[in-house]
Amino acid sequence: LPSMQTSGTKPCPCPSFKLREVASMYFTMVAVFLVILVVALQGSVPRGSDFPYKVPLDPQGLLELSWNVSYPEQAVHFQLLVRDLQFGLLFGMSDRGEFENADLAVLWSDGHNSYFGDAWSDAEGQLHMDSQQDYQLLGARRAPEGLYLLFRRAFSTCDPKDYLIEDGTVHLIYGILENPVHSLQAINISGIHRGLQRVQLLKPNITVPELPSDMKTMEITAPNVVIPSQETTYWCYMAELPDGFPKHHIIMYEPVITAGNEALVHHMEVFQCAAKFDSFPHYNGPCDSKMKPDRLNYCRHVLAAWAMGAQAFYYPEEAGLAFGGLGSSRYLRLEIHYHNPLVFKGRHDSSGIRLYYTATLRRYDAGIMELGLVYTPVMAIPPGEDTFILTGYCTDKCTQLALPAAGIRIFASQLHTHLAGRKVVTVLIRDGREQQVVNADGHYSPHFQEIRMLKEMVAVFPGDELITTCTYNTEDRSRATVGGFGILEEMCVNYVHYYPQTQLELCKSAVDPGYLHRYFNLVNRFNDEEVCTCPQVSVPQQFSSIPWNTFNRDVLRSLYGFAPISVHCNKSSAIRFPGEWEKQPLPTITERLREPIPRCPPTPGPRPAAPVPINLGELRRE
Amino acid sequence: LPSMQTSGTKPCPCPSFKLREVASMYFTMVAVFLVILVVALQGSVPRGSDFPYKVPLDPQGLLELSWNVSYPEQAVHFQLLVRDLQFGLLFGMSDRGEFENADLAVLWSDGHNSYFGDAWSDAEGQLHMDSQQDYQLLGARRAPEGLYLLFRRAFSTCDPKDYLIEDGTVHLIYGILENPVHSLQAINISGIHRGLQRVQLLKPNITVPELPSDMKTMEITAPNVVIPSQETTYWCYMAELPDGFPKHHIIMYEPVITAGNEALVHHMEVFQCAAKFDSFPHYNGPCDSKMKPDRLNYCRHVLAAWAMGAQAFYYPEEAGLAFGGLGSSRYLRLEIHYHNPLVFKGRHDSSGIRLYYTATLRRYDAGIMELGLVYTPVMAIPPGEDTFILTGYCTDKCTQLALPAAGIRIFASQLHTHLAGRKVVTVLIRDGREQQVVNADGHYSPHFQEIRMLKEMVAVFPGDELITTCTYNTEDRSRATVGGFGILEEMCVNYVHYYPQTQLELCKSAVDPGYLHRYFNLVNRFNDEEVCTCPQVSVPQQFSSIPWNTFNRDVLRSLYGFAPISVHCNKSSAIRFPGEWEKQPLPTITERLREPIPRCPPTPGPRPAAPVPINLGELRRE
Repeated sequence: LPSMQTSGTKPCPCPSFKLREVASMYFTMVAVFLVILVVALQGSVPRGSDFPYKVPLDPQGLLELSWNVSYPEQAVHFQLLVRDLQFGLLFGMSDRGEFENADLAVLWSDGHNSYFGDAWSDAEGQLHMDSQQDYQLLGARRAPEGLYLLFRRAFSTCDPKDYLIEDGTVHLIYGILENPVHSLQAINISGIHRGLQRVQLLKPNITVPELPSDMKTMEITAPNVVIPSQETTYWCYMAELPDGFPKHHIIMYEPVITAGNEALVHHMEVFQCAAKFDSFPHYNGPCDSKMKPDRLNYCRHVLAAWAMGAQAFYYPEEAGLAFGGLGSSRYLRLEIHYHNPLVFKGRHDSSGIRLYYTATLRRYDAGIMELGLVYTPVMAIPPGEDTFILTGYCTDKCTQLALPAAGIRIFASQLHTHLAGRKVVTVLIRDGREQQVVNADGHYSPHFQEIRMLKEMVAVFPGDELITTCTYNTEDRSRATVGGFGILEEMCVNYVHYYPQTQLELCKSAVDPGYLHRYFNLVNRFNDEEVCTCPQVSVPQQFSSIPWNTFNRDVLRSLYGFAPISVHCNKSSAIRFPGEWEKQPLPTITERLREPIPRCPPTPGPRPAAPVPINLGELRRE
Repeated sequence: LPSMQTSGTKPCPCPSFKLREVASMYFTMVAVFLVILVVALQGSVPRGSDFPYKVPLDPQGLLELSWNVSYPEQAVHFQLLVRDLQFGLLFGMSDRGEFENADLAVLWSDGHNSYFGDAWSDAEGQLHMDSQQDYQLLGARRAPEGLYLLFRRAFSTCDPKDYLIEDGTVHLIYGILENPVHSLQAINISGIHRGLQRVQLLKPNITVPELPSDMKTMEITAPNVVIPSQETTYWCYMAELPDGFPKHHIIMYEPVITAGNEALVHHMEVFQCAAKFDSFPHYNGPCDSKMKPDRLNYCRHVLAAWAMGAQAFYYPEEAGLAFGGLGSSRYLRLEIHYHNPLVFKGRHDSSGIRLYYTATLRRYDAGIMELGLVYTPVMAIPPGEDTFILTGYCTDKCTQLALPAAGIRIFASQLHTHLAGRKVVTVLIRDGREQQVVNADGHYSPHFQEIRMLKEMVAVFPGDELITTCTYNTEDRSRATVGGFGILEEMCVNYVHYYPQTQLELCKSAVDPGYLHRYFNLVNRFNDEEVCTCPQVSVPQQFSSIPWNTFNRDVLRSLYGFAPISVHCNKSSAIRFPGEWEKQPLPTITERLREPIPRCPPTPGPRPAAPVPINLGELRRE
């Protein structure tokens, strides 16, 4: 049990404190009694072993965050290990990892006295004590490895200065105070050692399924890679299943991280190669190297994916992901994203993914289906947009044709866009009414693409519709961003993992090209502008010649919300189900899901509007 | 002082109460002590004479509401007189006077015990006790005229079930409980005697200016009208200033209401007639009568306007509204809106407006300027729109030309639309940045058009811009609504009252007709639809032939947000200031005003989540 070290009731002289803080000291005196009382009474303070999720915050691993999620309490308990405490630290959350308009817990010390408080930063990055204290300090404990801080935060506090913790990505930010701090206001947030880490804070509460006794493991790991001394590396390594390896079910996988490299291995994926090639060259090197054989581009079928902060991935007990056997390739590609911002040199790494598989096939093969937008330039985003939304439809006609009468169960989802993506949501519609969110990430980052287990499985039946909406930001771009495979082109995809497997591999859409042509004509005529709409000019070229005034932007938005679509209801990326899929009407939605109203659960104990003194002893000056 | 009659601490047996309510009784027991304590301690409980504003709620005057506004406390104190208490009543607020999704204070009795509580109604009109009690009962008092209930409500409670009290119109609703009520849930809101009353709850805190000793009064009253026995009557009465009446300043006016008709006289206006006619016929009759002489349509210059719930109107001490003298008409038209939903017969009325005026002219003549949209069909609203916004611009070019270097001061404002209007806002812009709201009504009703004093005067200088935005609802219409004078056409106007008077009588805009023509062409080409865009077809006809799909709606919206405007910067409705006013660019706004974040002041005393028992004695059954 962490011992509580919050200081007693003796008055603390704070000559260097600003008037406002001095005034609040009176209340602190009162509050201290109460805090002690709360912590003493709090039977529910979690023990150190009660934090199942862990992630290093900084590349050196000086700050290590563990946490757990209490859905009944609608709160997260944090345990922050500070390996080399100097004069305090900042920890918090913000929309996309920025230090402005952030919600922060701050531990600071003037060298003699230490304080903990809930603060916020304004649009200029200036810190302020929050009038409502929602990071609740539960304890602090010195250990040989460093200081452990324990605190609690409700998902939703209804304080407009606070971050609302939602499903999906949370951008955690940290800062290290290397000098004595005499007041919160005196912290210059731009001058400190700081950074961001993305995590899925609200992990779903999954019961681990029972594992079979004949389970075997296979490690797909890169053999002794020297991590390049550059910020970003995508490393590619080709592995191979044994000759004649029969069909198995992958039922679980987990990361294997070389000790000491926890902060460098950002994410990893294992892809299966295309069965149409008999063999693939061996390769072990950067994915963007000119030496990389082109054939590796045919290794794109995801078998496993892991990102920092993720734990082991378990398939539902009635399903497994088939690999091996006839009709599937023996070749696997491991891709590791090394994130090395401090440019460490000569680090060796043998990380990878450990697959757990069984020969006793489970009842269902799991499948992966692609929802969202077709990779085509007809879906484009004007430049300079703060928020532009593109939507891909999996229509009732397609699910009617392709799904079994008993439906499918979606149990996991991986969202995917390129660099302009900011949010991704997939919603299930039945009879024109929105039923439930399949997966949503309101703080999506293209730099953090995990396969996420859903909180609850989503059943999809023939005739249902799946609408995937991506929100983009192109404020830093001067030309239109069109759909496509390039990193500066865009995608809007949700890879949903489901069972039983069907023939439907992708269910996506794009605007009808004829209507897009009318749009180019309209822009020409309406604005007296010269946009060549001659047929020999490509769609990307036409988009790039549009003068982007508010009218042309608005009308493109309206076009995408109105024009009929071309539906790709495909067995594989090239083979459509039989039927008429061009000029299909957009699904009409008669009933939307209600926005959830944030609950503001009464937090146990008082929430003093003043920092809590905390006894850490005298802190050293470097 | 109203005596406090909240009941004591003896347990109350409530056999007919639902389990949920019974459970809450325990808390009530505790709460009752506290309520008594609060009321006893509450030095600030207002006395009966402390409610300066008064309005009858129902047409019979059974319920009479008085209130005051405390801006320091950000709260309203209500005193509700119930003349003929039966088994309780409902009082509350909702967006537009509906009984669904309403925020209610309920007094109810089972015949033996009475309770007061904060409740809300859901989308089906079912009542629920609110988990946060924000209508705070301050006292109840029996008097010969009826029961007085005193209660308090903060403007903003941050309870999502509660109505946010804002500037502008508030739709008050009431219901009378004529039978014993055994639980809140048992109230069938659709089956009770109920109604709505619109008021401006948040009256501005105006200091009454000193009045001159030579002040005279003149009553413009209708002589002994028999109020027609129909729901709605607009009554017109022509009055005349004495021959040779010299220029005076109106410095104040107030309503004169015939006793007993307080609930029938809905609003009144005094108009001055056009000077270009030497004389006007006398008339005393309904405004829509075929007998009404056409010339009365030339009496449109507002001298005074009053609506139910409004008090006396005072001009600022440095200004007065000129009337009399050379160049102005001697003829005045009084218009009274009688609202007689219970169709009383044979009621006599001699109501009107009392003008207070002085021959000692004040420093400045006050003026009235029209902001918003030109009355033209080019500004149209598609049918079936829940929310459609039209915007009128008074541009920098116009104010540069027409306003004095020292600027003008706007001190009052009257918002005006026809029947589809739902919100009106005028914002002042300087150097592209929104400076302040001139006047805003987010619950605007065309049935409640008052001249409202501004909370603070707004200074407008040459080069400033005034942007007036009107929000319309055309859900009940099947054809486009175009701009114009007809009651089923629309207007978007803010009559601002200001000084010193200038030559600028109207500063309004409309979309450039050439761009609207391009829109009709575009609709034709894009949708393969037959919209005749031939020049001989009128704009209303063209609008009425548009097939209103989402694209055509969206593009019209985009057009109005993009196309250049024709500016009417006029000395009178027909004479423009010299200059180029066609195809003017829309003002660009680089900085918006921030939405105010509602403050949730801690209310004094506890807020039990249960009804408060209240001792009213046994209530009679009819």
